[in-house]
Amino acid sequence: MAHIHNYSAGPCILPAEVLEQASQAVKSWDDHGLSLVEMSHRSKAFVETMDECRALTKELLDLPDRFEILYLQGGASLGFLTAAMNFLPEGGQAAYADTGTWSAKAIKEAKHAGHVNVVTSSKDSNYDHIPTVGEVDAQNAFLHITTNNTIFGTQYADMPTSNVPLVADMSSDILSRTFDAEPFALIYGGVQKNMGPAGAVMYAVDTEKLGATGRDIPSYLDLNVHLGKDSMFNTPPVFSVYATMLTLRWLKAKGGVAAIQKENEAKSALLYAEIDRNALFSGHAQTDSRSHMNVTFRLNDDSHAAHFDAAWNAADISGLKGHRSVGGYRASMYNALPLSSVEVLVNVMREFERTHG
Amino acid sequence: MAHIHNYSAGPCILPAEVLEQASQAVKSWDDHGLSLVEMSHRSKAFVETMDECRALTKELLDLPDRFEILYLQGGASLGFLTAAMNFLPEGGQAAYADTGTWSAKAIKEAKHAGHVNVVTSSKDSNYDHIPTVGEVDAQNAFLHITTNNTIFGTQYADMPTSNVPLVADMSSDILSRTFDAEPFALIYGGVQKNMGPAGAVMYAVDTEKLGATGRDIPSYLDLNVHLGKDSMFNTPPVFSVYATMLTLRWLKAKGGVAAIQKENEAKSALLYAEIDRNALFSGHAQTDSRSHMNVTFRLNDDSHAAHFDAAWNAADISGLKGHRSVGGYRASMYNALPLSSVEVLVNVMREFERTHG
Repeated sequence: MAHIHNYSAGPCILPAEVLEQASQAVKSWDDHGLSLVEMSHRSKAFVETMDECRALTKELLDLPDRFEILYLQGGASLGFLTAAMNFLPEGGQAAYADTGTWSAKAIKEAKHAGHVNVVTSSKDSNYDHIPTVGEVDAQNAFLHITTNNTIFGTQYADMPTSNVPLVADMSSDILSRTFDAEPFALIYGGVQKNMGPAGAVMYAVDTEKLGATGRDIPSYLDLNVHLGKDSMFNTPPVFSVYATMLTLRWLKAKGGVAAIQKENEAKSALLYAEIDRNALFSGHAQTDSRSHMNVTFRLNDDSHAAHFDAAWNAADISGLKGHRSVGGYRASMYNALPLSSVEVLVNVMREFERTHG
Repeated sequence: MAHIHNYSAGPCILPAEVLEQASQAVKSWDDHGLSLVEMSHRSKAFVETMDECRALTKELLDLPDRFEILYLQGGASLGFLTAAMNFLPEGGQAAYADTGTWSAKAIKEAKHAGHVNVVTSSKDSNYDHIPTVGEVDAQNAFLHITTNNTIFGTQYADMPTSNVPLVADMSSDILSRTFDAEPFALIYGGVQKNMGPAGAVMYAVDTEKLGATGRDIPSYLDLNVHLGKDSMFNTPPVFSVYATMLTLRWLKAKGGVAAIQKENEAKSALLYAEIDRNALFSGHAQTDSRSHMNVTFRLNDDSHAAHFDAAWNAADISGLKGHRSVGGYRASMYNALPLSSVEVLVNVMREFERTHG
C-alpha cells in the first residue's frame, strides 16, 4: 500500500512507532498478560503510565514548578467552560482575544462563569490575522488566547505580553515550539494534534492561582478535585493517555520541543515559500500571522480546483481540503509530519504550475 | 504466556476478537491506509462507525423510537451532572435512590442543578441491599437509580416501577440483561465495563422529555447540542467509540442481550452457589439484591487471606481483591468473562476448603 501523506487537521498523523507500540498494547501490554484497555486504571502499570505522562508534559513544556498536569476527558470544548469556572471569580470578569472559531466558542462558554470582555477581534477580515492585544483593564482575572487557529491558519508569532495572567487554549500548537510559561495561569488543549489520539484534554495548571474563584464548582469541572486525585478522579481515557505518553517519549528522544520547532519551521518555510512563489496560489493568513501548524491557501482560479484535487490525490496526499469557513486548502503539518511529505506537496504545486500556469 | 482470568472491576475484560480488531485498526484501519486514530473524525469511515455504534446500541437495548444515542466524554462522573442539568427543571426537584458510592456521587452533582430528595438509602447497612422505592412525590421530575452497584455487589433484581420517569446510571450492568425501557427518560453509563475501552460515556436520551428545564446549559453539558450534531459536536473519543462498536457487533452476533443474560446468570449462579455452600466464605450482598456482574464475598476467617490470595494468584486469576469500602473479594463477571473462568475460581475455592476447612 502506498504511503499516505497525512495532512489531516486532527485527529491527525502520529509517529509510526507510537502507533506500532499502542497497537501492540491493545493486544497485549508488555509482560502484563492483558490488554492495556482491560486492566484496572488503578493498576501499578497504569498509574506509572499516567505519572510518566504528566511528568514528561511538564518537562517538555519546561513549566515552572508551580504547574501541575492533568489529563481529563471532554476535549478543549469542555475546557472552555472548565477554564472559566476555575479562574474567573464569581461576579468577576475576564478578557478574551477573538482570533477564530475556537476563540468564539471559548467566549461563549466563559459567559456561563462571568462577564467576558472581548478585547480584540479579527472577525471582520475572516480571521486572517492575529490582532494586537494591548494592555487590558486590570479588573480582568486573565487574558484568554487561542495560540494557533487551526481553521484559519493563524498563530501568535510570539505569545502576547500581558498585564494580567494568560490562559491559553494551545490545542493545535502545543509542543510545537518553545515559549516562556511564566506569564500563564492555565494552558490547556485537546491532545489530538501534537500529543496523541483523540479522547483526552491536557491541563497545565498554575496551582498557586487556582482555587480563588469563590465558586462551588461541580466535581468534574473542578481542577482542584482532579489534582487531589492525581488525574484519576474517575476512570481516565486509558488508551489516549498511554499513546500520549508514548508520543511524549518520542518527542523527548528527538531532542524535545526546541528540536521539533526547527523541523516545523523548515516545513512551513518550504510550503509558504512555494505559495508566495507560485502564481497559481495565494495564502489566506496575513504574513506576520502565519501558522507553522496549519497552512491555509487557495487557488487564484477556482476553475482549476478539480484538476488540482486530482493531482494531490494522485500523489497520495490526504486531508488537504480546507475548512468550509475559509475554503481552498489547508495543509496541517503537526509534529509527526515529515519534511518529505511537504516536499511531495510542493512538488505537486510546482508541477501543477507547469501544466496549468 | 498463561491465560489470565480477568476479574477486574473496570476497565475490564473485553472480547478477544474485539481487542484483536481494535489493535489492528490502531496500526492500519481496514483499507484506509492510515491508523484509525490519525484519520479525521469527519471522514466517511469514522462517521459510519459512529452511526453504526449508535444504531447498534439502540437496537441491542431494544429502545423505543423516541430514544437517541450519544457517545461523549467525561464518564458517568460527568454524566451525574449532565443528567441533572438536562432533566431537572430550573427550581425543580428530583428523587434519588442511594444504593452505594456511585449513587452518592450522583446525588452530590445533581445538587448543582436543583433540589434532591433522597427517597431511600441502604447506607446504614453498608449498602448490602437494594432498598424498596415506593411512590415518590409527583413533584419530582424523575427518580434516579444506579441499577448495579459495582463496589457493593448489589443490583436491582427488577427495575423499580415508578410514578415518575426513571433516570438510570447503568454503567456496570448495561447490556447484561433485558429490561423494558418504556419508563425511562435517560439511561447513561461509562462504556468501560460491558461496552468497550474507557474514554466514552453512552447516553440514551428520551428526546420527547429532553429540553424542558428552562435552563441555559453550557454547550458540552447540553444533550440537545450533542444530538443536533449527531454525537460529533466536538472530536469524539475515536478509539473508544470504534472498539465499542466492535463489542456491540460481537454481542449481536452472540444473540444479543437475551443470550448474554443467560450466560451471565449461569456464571453468577455457579459462584453464588459456591459461596453459599463453602463454609469458609460469606457473601456481602443480601440474597435478593445480589448482582450478576459483581460478586462480593469474604473469608469468614481473615487469617486465611494470605493463603487464599496465593491460591487464586497461582490459578492465574487477576483483579479479585475487593474494594476498600467492603473488603474481602469481588469477582467482576462482565459480559466478556467466560464461564470457564468462573469454573477456575470455584475450583480454587473448593480446593481451598479441602486444604483449609
